[in-house]
Amino acid sequence: MKNRKITLNEHEIPEKWYNIIADMPNKPLPPLHPGTKEPIGPEALAPLFPGALIEQEVTSEKWVEIPDEVRDIYSLWRPTPLYRAYGLEKALDTPAKIYYKYEGTSPAGSHKPNTAVAQAYYNKQEGINRITTETGAGQWGSALSFACNLFDIECEVYMVRLSYDHKPYRKVMMNTWGAKVFPSPSEATEAGRKILAEDPDTTGSLGIAISEAVERAATNEDTKYALGSVLNHVKLHQTIIGQEAVQQMEKAGDLPDIVIAPFGGGSNFAGLAFPFLRFNLEEGKSIRCIASEPASCPKLTRGVFKYDFGDTVGMTPLLPMYTLGHNFIPAPIHAGGLRYHGAGVIVSQLLRDKLIEAVAHDNVEVFEAGVTFARAEGIIPAPEATHGIATAIHEANKCREEGVPRTILFNLCGHGNFDMKAYEDYFDGKIVKHELSEEEISKLITELDTPDV
Amino acid sequence: MKNRKITLNEHEIPEKWYNIIADMPNKPLPPLHPGTKEPIGPEALAPLFPGALIEQEVTSEKWVEIPDEVRDIYSLWRPTPLYRAYGLEKALDTPAKIYYKYEGTSPAGSHKPNTAVAQAYYNKQEGINRITTETGAGQWGSALSFACNLFDIECEVYMVRLSYDHKPYRKVMMNTWGAKVFPSPSEATEAGRKILAEDPDTTGSLGIAISEAVERAATNEDTKYALGSVLNHVKLHQTIIGQEAVQQMEKAGDLPDIVIAPFGGGSNFAGLAFPFLRFNLEEGKSIRCIASEPASCPKLTRGVFKYDFGDTVGMTPLLPMYTLGHNFIPAPIHAGGLRYHGAGVIVSQLLRDKLIEAVAHDNVEVFEAGVTFARAEGIIPAPEATHGIATAIHEANKCREEGVPRTILFNLCGHGNFDMKAYEDYFDGKIVKHELSEEEISKLITELDTPDV
Repeated sequence: MKNRKITLNEHEIPEKWYNIIADMPNKPLPPLHPGTKEPIGPEALAPLFPGALIEQEVTSEKWVEIPDEVRDIYSLWRPTPLYRAYGLEKALDTPAKIYYKYEGTSPAGSHKPNTAVAQAYYNKQEGINRITTETGAGQWGSALSFACNLFDIECEVYMVRLSYDHKPYRKVMMNTWGAKVFPSPSEATEAGRKILAEDPDTTGSLGIAISEAVERAATNEDTKYALGSVLNHVKLHQTIIGQEAVQQMEKAGDLPDIVIAPFGGGSNFAGLAFPFLRFNLEEGKSIRCIASEPASCPKLTRGVFKYDFGDTVGMTPLLPMYTLGHNFIPAPIHAGGLRYHGAGVIVSQLLRDKLIEAVAHDNVEVFEAGVTFARAEGIIPAPEATHGIATAIHEANKCREEGVPRTILFNLCGHGNFDMKAYEDYFDGKIVKHELSEEEISKLITELDTPDV
Repeated sequence: MKNRKITLNEHEIPEKWYNIIADMPNKPLPPLHPGTKEPIGPEALAPLFPGALIEQEVTSEKWVEIPDEVRDIYSLWRPTPLYRAYGLEKALDTPAKIYYKYEGTSPAGSHKPNTAVAQAYYNKQEGINRITTETGAGQWGSALSFACNLFDIECEVYMVRLSYDHKPYRKVMMNTWGAKVFPSPSEATEAGRKILAEDPDTTGSLGIAISEAVERAATNEDTKYALGSVLNHVKLHQTIIGQEAVQQMEKAGDLPDIVIAPFGGGSNFAGLAFPFLRFNLEEGKSIRCIASEPASCPKLTRGVFKYDFGDTVGMTPLLPMYTLGHNFIPAPIHAGGLRYHGAGVIVSQLLRDKLIEAVAHDNVEVFEAGVTFARAEGIIPAPEATHGIATAIHEANKCREEGVPRTILFNLCGHGNFDMKAYEDYFDGKIVKHELSEEEISKLITELDTPDV
């Protein structure tokens, strides 16, 4: 019998999250006030987030203890398995050793509950009884609904109306965990009512949904807001993935040469890669960490490093990030979780310092990779996850061409059970390339009038 | 931190399946020829199944070795976790200790791959390159598609047209693993063409789909047929569930007083319960093993013990079983996997000998149980799985009323990711009771003109 799966038991769930800021040679630049453009402190976040999360957002402590109650909930699906991809290696006829960490075993089906549970816990600790958020495709909304339910917190999800109408099953999933799901724009907020008055038939947008969720939190004492990626504390929580993977690779008697993860706002990538990047920063190892983004939303590979807003309408602080501009609307690819204009500040700084790498894959290539993986390994990946697979396949093919047996590890961040329509479109030949032209990129960057770094 | 999850590592995957026939005080009666009504031997199955599976169908060996190649594939998702349901215990305010074995971590999302992988393996060993089967809701078709793909066997699935049209995502899942899926009746078989000629707009039935799959296997040298429940070899393969659970309960320092599983054809129940029933048969323990069936299809609780056909049209051997009659068409409940008129012969004999128990739950009760479970434990169960939950809740409530802290174990046989429509119907108040009247039951039994036992 092959040693396909490297398991840990529930007592081996890591006790600390890893905060890479402590080890970064150049720390991230401070955020700026959206109006004054002056640096702001953590207190600016107080209306939206509980104190403990704001502290985690700015801490320079290297290790942050995971509360027992959070580890307890984690144990529902963690530690997640790490697999040696013998099937994929054989299908690619590569000398590479390929491993993947599988986050699809969570009840919500992705890595998102790693931070959702932590966020719900800290909110509950500070007496918060309602958390609002936005969701597009539904992965994040599902994860937060799941987490809030376990801590007996009311969860309000503003779901982009287009998704609300087209992805009813994600909505039902959230309802099953007791969450209230509103099609956004909704009648529940001032922002929503205003937009509906102007255009009753609007299909909504993530920017509008954020505005609604933020308004509810900002105007209600016992209500806070939660974000599923981009911010430092979200990345911090996700390092549980890499912390486990480090233990598992040690058990396998291997250390990766290359670590790969899909890239949307950064928490997926940070989660797996930062605990390995630590070996580079601490011990001078040279593990290549590669962020894998869609060619239709290539902020890391083709964007500009600049201050930019986190939202579309320009209400959030200005953050120093690789961005395509807050007005950029990515093509409607199925990997909805990767359709974000900017990259979180830590990842942006690391890329600027050439401590990590980034690659982009087109939409057809990633589905080819996804089907290859499903047939070789048995698990059908989420469209977001196929980006990491495409990069892993690319690197494994290079190993074959060069005759070098490198060890590759990637983050299989979720299953595709709710994404069968995407696979149907692929089999029906309806998936098309969405690559930006030089002119489009140059126009986006030229028009971005936010402050330079 | 609570000890919620009892894990085994991949080296603890059991090496043998348990064949309860060896320990049964009364062995099952022989099958009869559908025409002559005379007892038949295993050779009658040769056109449909490979020799190794026919041997397993009739063996009286107590332990059957699991081939290394099968254990290797099992390790993709096995051993599956066993959970202590602290959340559910709290929600029910019961002194009972509740455990559940979770089979939803398989790539196909249920326990079905346990036998699909074994069946694909033995077919491949005997040079079979194509396996046919039927599927209703799609759980079994998905599992066999997954398994055949890993052994490079062509898989043909005849999917009841009603499901084919209404559950496209299960079809896409099968396609992703490379299976060919035909809406049944299809043009691919004589049986299908005949029915289509008579009624081009028919929505099909499981009986028709079986006829098509069987015809393809019977008329093609290199093609065999596979069944997902009912038969002895299928039950045998599923005992991997209980074999693991026995180890896990030992690790937890506990032995169940009550073991519960949903009941369709019997493999789900056999899988978890038989390895515990062994303690009763071998050591005189008195673990209650309860099969949980839908009130709309109550063959165990209200059926008759009689010879009956396995299929609707009367082509299969006559089997001694608890049945509602092969012409019985169960109400269209969402738990499609439990809509079968009869019970496998081993389970039928055990029930007749009062060595196991059976209960029935109505359709509304099981969804209430499913939502209670999802909110207490985080995992959204498949509609089939909610039946076992309903029984567990019933027993846990009795523990509270009687003040007795019994230990309950049930089989959470699959997740509900592909069943969100069912939950939507429940929340919309569209789930209704389907209970059979005394008159209906008595009519079904009176009209059944097959041989008595």
